[in-house]
Amino acid sequence: MNRMLIHLAYDGSGFQGYQKQPNARSVQGEVERALAKMHKAASWPSVSSGRTDAGVHGLCQPVHFDTPLSIPEERWPRALNSLLPDDIHVQSAEPFDGRHARYDAEAKEYVYRMLIAEERDIFRRHYVHQLRQKPDITAMRRAAAHWLGTHDFSALSSPRTDVVDKVRTMYAIDLEENGPEWTIRFIGSGFLYQMVRVMTGTLLEVGYGSRRADSMPALLEGRDRRTAGKTAPAEGLYLSRVFYSPEALERHMRGLSPEA
Amino acid sequence: MNRMLIHLAYDGSGFQGYQKQPNARSVQGEVERALAKMHKAASWPSVSSGRTDAGVHGLCQPVHFDTPLSIPEERWPRALNSLLPDDIHVQSAEPFDGRHARYDAEAKEYVYRMLIAEERDIFRRHYVHQLRQKPDITAMRRAAAHWLGTHDFSALSSPRTDVVDKVRTMYAIDLEENGPEWTIRFIGSGFLYQMVRVMTGTLLEVGYGSRRADSMPALLEGRDRRTAGKTAPAEGLYLSRVFYSPEALERHMRGLSPEA
Repeated sequence: MNRMLIHLAYDGSGFQGYQKQPNARSVQGEVERALAKMHKAASWPSVSSGRTDAGVHGLCQPVHFDTPLSIPEERWPRALNSLLPDDIHVQSAEPFDGRHARYDAEAKEYVYRMLIAEERDIFRRHYVHQLRQKPDITAMRRAAAHWLGTHDFSALSSPRTDVVDKVRTMYAIDLEENGPEWTIRFIGSGFLYQMVRVMTGTLLEVGYGSRRADSMPALLEGRDRRTAGKTAPAEGLYLSRVFYSPEALERHMRGLSPEA
Repeated sequence: MNRMLIHLAYDGSGFQGYQKQPNARSVQGEVERALAKMHKAASWPSVSSGRTDAGVHGLCQPVHFDTPLSIPEERWPRALNSLLPDDIHVQSAEPFDGRHARYDAEAKEYVYRMLIAEERDIFRRHYVHQLRQKPDITAMRRAAAHWLGTHDFSALSSPRTDVVDKVRTMYAIDLEENGPEWTIRFIGSGFLYQMVRVMTGTLLEVGYGSRRADSMPALLEGRDRRTAGKTAPAEGLYLSRVFYSPEALERHMRGLSPEA
């Protein structure tokens, strides 16, 4: 058996989340159905770098599976895409022997997309979080800076989880403004349940002046989800990348910094 | 009774077309359901400038209705939007006494959107027609120029229609290239069934070299749909605007021309 890693893009708006579940359409369910067909089996297991909630999108999500088939790596995407529905797309495949899509993840990047526009843009309702008023980006950047580094993120994630250790490291939180298109890019060692959406909701409250940027250290310290902001809606959130080595992460971070 | 004209944006991907029909979701059905609620009636009629097929979008489609309610025009959009599903949006409303959304239409504009990209963009599958190879835009422009002015467009529209007079006037057919985003803008006195999609499909065959730009006069002359190109898919097509006076049309055309 060889282990393959594939990278998936998916439009989360038609799924009840990444993870397979009975009587609900899931990305994993569709991927494993395609893998089962290729292997002429009743089912075929796969392991993702992580799960996303209903409505959350994937830009380049890694998934591994073991296979006895000797298909050249460049043929896997087309073979799988011909069996997948049109809201999932395999972008690439590579050998991944001896590694694990979840356990070997060194860091992840999520992006959260917003559209600042008075008039509702119905064509993007599944793909951005639309805001009518422009928030104060400087205040949001000052707030986010308090989260960089290693902290207990209990206050900024959902308590509905079995995960006990809530300490994670944030490498970068960048707010980018491109006309009416705003993006927040989060790069961290890992993310807790709904953490990016709670962070985004909290930053927006800072941006609209209902919360102060310098209240962030006390917020983290308190470890109480009820003291943070509202969970921002799923439609703006994209799992962007997963890094499997410190070098891959460093290369990506160097590419982002303006002095590169 | 006062007559009101509203302008609608709608995402056609969730509808079996504009026109009301039994057992299928339609834009007209949703709009009339909202109007019926506002009027506390079982149903409420409306008249659109025209119909669009399943999957075709509306950017600013005019619809009129008569009403005994004395609601100020600026309140109508919010009132209707609160009753409409999230894939239809009323942008504006204005008094329209003595006029008719369909019969008084002087001209219409459609846009057809394409994305030129090797890798499939699943997020835009309902909103653009994706092409892997770049067509020859100069050849397409030369072909389109043969359609300007007044012609019988039998060859470039579906024969599945009761419309007998197939003579229409094309005021402008502009191909715009903006990086990988291509748009064809069609402005004409009126458009026959599937005419914009057949025109686009024919232009693409010219762009890919399987048909010559200078064969267009003979194509029109022959009046035979079977001699034109394939019907381009619905997802790239948007009804953009309808003009109710020569002045409104002229103002718009002046705004488009580079020397304006």
